Amino acid sequence: MTDVPSMDALAMLLRRLPGIGPRSAQRISYELLVRKRELMPQLAAALQQAHTVVRFCERCNNLSESSRCGVCRAEHRDRSIVCVVESPADLRAIEDTGVFAGEFFVLMGHLSPLDGIGPEALHIDRLTARLAEADLREVIFATNPTLEGEATAQFLAGLVPNGIIVSRIARGVPVGGELEYVDRGTLGRALHGRRLLDE
Amino acid sequence: MTDVPSMDALAMLLRRLPGIGPRSAQRISYELLVRKRELMPQLAAALQQAHTVVRFCERCNNLSESSRCGVCRAEHRDRSIVCVVESPADLRAIEDTGVFAGEFFVLMGHLSPLDGIGPEALHIDRLTARLAEADLREVIFATNPTLEGEATAQFLAGLVPNGIIVSRIARGVPVGGELEYVDRGTLGRALHGRRLLDE
Repeated sequence: MTDVPSMDALAMLLRRLPGIGPRSAQRISYELLVRKRELMPQLAAALQQAHTVVRFCERCNNLSESSRCGVCRAEHRDRSIVCVVESPADLRAIEDTGVFAGEFFVLMGHLSPLDGIGPEALHIDRLTARLAEADLREVIFATNPTLEGEATAQFLAGLVPNGIIVSRIARGVPVGGELEYVDRGTLGRALHGRRLLDE
Repeated sequence: MTDVPSMDALAMLLRRLPGIGPRSAQRISYELLVRKRELMPQLAAALQQAHTVVRFCERCNNLSESSRCGVCRAEHRDRSIVCVVESPADLRAIEDTGVFAGEFFVLMGHLSPLDGIGPEALHIDRLTARLAEADLREVIFATNPTLEGEATAQFLAGLVPNGIIVSRIARGVPVGGELEYVDRGTLGRALHGRRLLDE
């Protein structure tokens, strides 16, 4: 704490951002007030603007500035494949690979009974509606490879109508990694999920 | 980049804060927009408030919400000792030690001819005025133990009127550190600056 209350107030709020501890929050506050004053109103305006303008896509929950997000508005996407992810950031990560041309559904979380997050929190009614669309052929579950992510995928797979392919992203050794440093669970999964060399 | 321009704009500004790279900036933007929406207007208001209210102490350049900072306003401080520091954050660090009861002067930087930072940028006229005050007895230079900080201390020492004690904070091994891991320059300094055991 300093004897400058409005700087302390700013630092307290900055600490609530991910990856910013008490020291970083104070460092950022000093930097803004001493050397980057012009950034403060800009940042305030950007926060207000994003807060006002950004909402959730009515079809897939992705972040968007209109009622449907860029992916759902695009005309060339393959509507017969839906990739189910936990968050808009995960959607972005998959988009950035450039290898997926289907659509998405963002759950906004994962099942976590201990935290009171049940199926109703995951927009299941809208997911069910999406899964009922006529041209659907495959659902890819791309929830995180964590306990909660796996449980969520397992649970949601039970909601997929018969006749639709249900898949899960592959778990295995990360590309570029060295086997020696890969954890046992991952390596076990990679052996278990091995593919024929000519596939 | 995403297809949500106001989120990208926010992330671009966050990247200009110290310690926040492109990944952190995106992560913070997602976190704010997906899970911490209520924080966005709060943070915007805190930025605006601090930007409007925080200024520099007219006596010592410290951050303050009035014309004189908390240290300069305090009645019990020893006005006969001035500690010269590079930044308000350095002032705060020294205040937090609780061992200094004198006053400060914040240079707002250090001499750096290559970056075009000459003496005039360091509020030298006001420092000179402060050094001319009648009851001054000692000036402690607590600029950083870097090349620029040392050069700044050396240069400013030349401005101190005769008869006033000029000191420099001790350079040596950090308390709690292990000699084995201390760099050569620091260890050399620590030997050079050794003190009699009974001091």
